Amino acid sequence: MLLKCEECCEILRGMDDIVIVAHQNPDGDTLGSSFALMYVLRQLGKRARVECSDGFPAQYSYMFPDYSPEDYEPKNIISVDLAAKELFGPKTEKYADRVDLCIDHHGSNTMYAKATFVKPEAAATAELIESIIYELEDVELTKLIANCIYTGVSTDTGCFRYSNTTAHSHAVAGRMFKAGCDYAYINHVMFEMKSLSRIAIEREVMNTIEYHFSKRCALCYITKAMMASTGALDSELEGVAAIPRQIEGVAVGVTLRERDGGFKASLRTDDNTDAMEICRLLGGGGHPRAAGCFISGTLDEAKTTVLGAIGQVLGCKEDNA
Amino acid sequence: MLLKCEECCEILRGMDDIVIVAHQNPDGDTLGSSFALMYVLRQLGKRARVECSDGFPAQYSYMFPDYSPEDYEPKNIISVDLAAKELFGPKTEKYADRVDLCIDHHGSNTMYAKATFVKPEAAATAELIESIIYELEDVELTKLIANCIYTGVSTDTGCFRYSNTTAHSHAVAGRMFKAGCDYAYINHVMFEMKSLSRIAIEREVMNTIEYHFSKRCALCYITKAMMASTGALDSELEGVAAIPRQIEGVAVGVTLRERDGGFKASLRTDDNTDAMEICRLLGGGGHPRAAGCFISGTLDEAKTTVLGAIGQVLGCKEDNA
Repeated sequence: MLLKCEECCEILRGMDDIVIVAHQNPDGDTLGSSFALMYVLRQLGKRARVECSDGFPAQYSYMFPDYSPEDYEPKNIISVDLAAKELFGPKTEKYADRVDLCIDHHGSNTMYAKATFVKPEAAATAELIESIIYELEDVELTKLIANCIYTGVSTDTGCFRYSNTTAHSHAVAGRMFKAGCDYAYINHVMFEMKSLSRIAIEREVMNTIEYHFSKRCALCYITKAMMASTGALDSELEGVAAIPRQIEGVAVGVTLRERDGGFKASLRTDDNTDAMEICRLLGGGGHPRAAGCFISGTLDEAKTTVLGAIGQVLGCKEDNA
Repeated sequence: MLLKCEECCEILRGMDDIVIVAHQNPDGDTLGSSFALMYVLRQLGKRARVECSDGFPAQYSYMFPDYSPEDYEPKNIISVDLAAKELFGPKTEKYADRVDLCIDHHGSNTMYAKATFVKPEAAATAELIESIIYELEDVELTKLIANCIYTGVSTDTGCFRYSNTTAHSHAVAGRMFKAGCDYAYINHVMFEMKSLSRIAIEREVMNTIEYHFSKRCALCYITKAMMASTGALDSELEGVAAIPRQIEGVAVGVTLRERDGGFKASLRTDDNTDAMEICRLLGGGGHPRAAGCFISGTLDEAKTTVLGAIGQVLGCKEDNA
């Protein structure tokens, strides 16, 4: 059943002893939305806690100060920003077949819950939680809730940079500012602060950047040895694949990431170049501006293979700059 | 004379054959605000052109497609985002003593114009131009004007990241979205795209990062040789001084920039460390969180000197990590 906001609020009012489930590999939106909803439900006099298969990363702790979840047998399950059962993760998948309500912004939502409040036009699930707060007139928008919602919207829009950002995203952010959210602290932690290992892997990756096809293609790589020597985690690589495409004049940016037996190639292209067409030549796929494929062999073999396919689509021969 | 928005609009209606002056070393706000105002004045049936001592950098050209300024003897001069006469620059300083109207958001404005519309609480001068458009009810907010205003607000707030961002900044951005501004393109050009020389100097600078005082201090440097070998311009160094302070756990970030006879040290500190106190020990000054000083001598001498002062203020001895 697909819900309107009012109907979603009616269902929330009828619930108690609630477990809210965030998706695995949690991000700012699933956690911000989940904790904001938890505070809302507690204001309504209900017991509620948040669970996430991978726990709660420390950088988000300002959203749940002194969080000690109460232990009770849940009567109702709500999943948040969770498009499909496969995204629950091992520790919370026990709830996947009994979800009463799913609140999500993914157009790809598989409608696995008994009732679903989904808006694909929203940049973040946190925008839906905000609409719920306005609909529930007896709930106060506290500073803590504002911090959670601002985190969801700002992280899912890359701080209002990505093309999914809407006028509504800015309107929600403005209302969170008025509610006193700590935007300067949150922006520092989410968008400026980098761990020692992230700085170290970024430096290593930048040192691998090479140009091909008269600088129309930039390529960089990440080997297992680089990950080991810097101590970087997979979760710290966010944005690294985008580096080559940020370079002025580059039509195809390639990042090669070492996996068992070969390399995963991630391609990002400009508006005139089809990343998917290139990756299909190598048995992969994706979207026109962002696609990927797996290439067996050594680093040099992977480079030769991916550059061959790029040259074919760009319609030019290697002219290494 | 300090104006209200209505009074500013009355003055604008009385003008003609206008030259709008942007500040030297132009940025997104001075250019966005100036061109937005030019389009507004042209809608009101007036002749208007924009001048900037340093010309108009190519990355902003979407704000002035096919711009060919009309040549006429100006009757009225408006300065935009221009806090003091010293900021006009050599090619436009001829106007500095005859400015009829200044529109600006700097609290430091020296009130050099005959009339001044200034709001220090605004994150960008573009926010003031937007308020003028709303006051002038017969002016249409076109897509081109929206692109100019969005550019001003987004660049002066670091895409809504900096602490000067307000609820009003988000409200203005939301209205520019509704007017159809090309936010995805603008964000790509302003915040993601990097020139080949910027990528090259960034890589060089990252390779110089070193840690001191149990990683409470991170230091990097930029020599004249690095600038020459990468071909980077001074204008491409924006944000580079901030890199060391972005590293998790770092209380003092230092960037040493080679100048004739020595190095300019730029310090950025966390909330518990006084950058100004450190720089004062070396004859410099600034603000508590961002300060600078000049140190004569070689790179090694400059490092030793600045680290000595930092150790004194941090109250600890060198413990090179």
